[in-house]
Amino acid sequence: MACGEFSLIARYFDRVRNSRRDVETGIGDDCALLNVIEKQTLAISVDTLVAGNHFLPEIDPADLACKALAVNLSDLAAVGADPAWMTLALTLPEVDESWLEKFSDSLFEQLSYYDMQLIGGDTTRGPLSMTIGIHGYVPPGRAMKRSGAKPGDWIYVTGTLGDSAAGLAILQQRLSVSDKADAESLLKRHLRPTPRVLHGQALRSLASSAIDLSDGLISDLAHILKASQCGARIDLDALPFSAAFSRHVEPEQALRWALSGGEDYELCFTVPELNRGALDVAIGQLGVPFTCIGQISADVEGLHFTRSGKAVTLDWKGYDHFAES
Amino acid sequence: MACGEFSLIARYFDRVRNSRRDVETGIGDDCALLNVIEKQTLAISVDTLVAGNHFLPEIDPADLACKALAVNLSDLAAVGADPAWMTLALTLPEVDESWLEKFSDSLFEQLSYYDMQLIGGDTTRGPLSMTIGIHGYVPPGRAMKRSGAKPGDWIYVTGTLGDSAAGLAILQQRLSVSDKADAESLLKRHLRPTPRVLHGQALRSLASSAIDLSDGLISDLAHILKASQCGARIDLDALPFSAAFSRHVEPEQALRWALSGGEDYELCFTVPELNRGALDVAIGQLGVPFTCIGQISADVEGLHFTRSGKAVTLDWKGYDHFAES
Repeated sequence: MACGEFSLIARYFDRVRNSRRDVETGIGDDCALLNVIEKQTLAISVDTLVAGNHFLPEIDPADLACKALAVNLSDLAAVGADPAWMTLALTLPEVDESWLEKFSDSLFEQLSYYDMQLIGGDTTRGPLSMTIGIHGYVPPGRAMKRSGAKPGDWIYVTGTLGDSAAGLAILQQRLSVSDKADAESLLKRHLRPTPRVLHGQALRSLASSAIDLSDGLISDLAHILKASQCGARIDLDALPFSAAFSRHVEPEQALRWALSGGEDYELCFTVPELNRGALDVAIGQLGVPFTCIGQISADVEGLHFTRSGKAVTLDWKGYDHFAES
Repeated sequence: MACGEFSLIARYFDRVRNSRRDVETGIGDDCALLNVIEKQTLAISVDTLVAGNHFLPEIDPADLACKALAVNLSDLAAVGADPAWMTLALTLPEVDESWLEKFSDSLFEQLSYYDMQLIGGDTTRGPLSMTIGIHGYVPPGRAMKRSGAKPGDWIYVTGTLGDSAAGLAILQQRLSVSDKADAESLLKRHLRPTPRVLHGQALRSLASSAIDLSDGLISDLAHILKASQCGARIDLDALPFSAAFSRHVEPEQALRWALSGGEDYELCFTVPELNRGALDVAIGQLGVPFTCIGQISADVEGLHFTRSGKAVTLDWKGYDHFAES
């Protein structure tokens, strides 16, 4: 069916014009106009998802909307920001109204949950992909950065690791999980990851550094180590696995997925000894486990692993779109 | 050559970290951190350019960087905003270092010219496309909108119309221009359009409405008319053509390209009778012609055209990515 670009945008994405007081003009003009809350620092991040690379082309559009937003919210969570606005640049091979309806319904449900507003975007014809820009607020000087880790700080992760890689393996029929509830749980972790927004907010006065786990612990923690100019020791026995993951994934595979499977969208953060007590109070009530997996160290370079108290060597890397495998 | 995603971003795009005082953290962490200038409204826009749709795949990467930025700056110009930051989400089929060098050199040259900073982005593998997010400042309450045109206001355009469509036609060998200087001039208008940023800033206290001409006058002016709930009369004899354009394009084709060729990235704006004198002073010194092409009217619906004083009917439309031709 013929459907002009502008009516398409209007019909599916121009739903909510005034959900936030800091939005003067949202969708519908050449620019969105925002009256930024005074004495707040703005946090901005951008992520692109390409079909066949970041998601399977046949993904349910409702899942895709959840995942695309979660990937971006996870970046806000990593600096401890409160979500505010998003932009959506959507490239579609064709106008599929049923797809657009499911995608936009799901997106607006999520936006409403996070008190966010879609303030602008673009719709173009081309191979399926999208770029989301996300904007949030953080009190001045309180944003968590990758560069703040100090020797002696403890390294934590939220949630469990590897579930998303296991979920993807189920989708691609590389992993067979007979228990239906376990399969559902792993699939959900891949298709609808939960960005740790509340954790990020609670951590911004406690953590010395933070990053979100998009590419895998090895790759992402390396960014903290590089920016903070220090090394780290990780206790492989301490890595948190979900019950479903432990039940259905062989131990070596589990380790590989936990360390370099990617797309868990948990937070990895460092906490000085002094703040460990406050940490329990601050994020203990959020209903998600958090686990100390190691410690920042001045006397090693890069990542060092121990298992049963002994040093082990691993040579896997995190996911890298352009690296030759 | 193998080249990891992160080293790629660092090498070509992480060049300038502190060119602006309002940027606390640019590229290199999960989010950019911005300390927004107080008592300024933020203007944000997003545009995607897809190879084969918005630009020819064989385009010179230096031209592409200019054009991609210009397309976005043009949106800021349309509301009268001062450019500040941009984000770049670049999707590439492969790592081509020569391409990346030319593209990024050209981009940073433009950013420096406009006193802008690249604050973040994403690099992914996929069919060549890019999404640019652009951020600027406008004094509170002074942003030009599409909705402010009133009956009696005069309709203006900056520059000349149709050149970009003629330039594209030369590239696609649909138009033959023997004079080399004329051909160069039309090609440049297509490949490196000049966003009317200074005009936008000067117009924000004079114009009642504004839009940038990306899809063509018919399509873009229609947005002003719809948002302002009025009609307009356009004098076809008044449409401004460049000398090169007039010399090489047949009159009927010229009219078609001027009205619906698209990609001129000039501004179309409306000015109340009271402000016409001030207009000459405000934008007369900017070295670009501006032309009154018609008037907003309460007694017609939509666009009405006259030629040699007589009403004429045109049924062309502006460019629309998803419309069936």
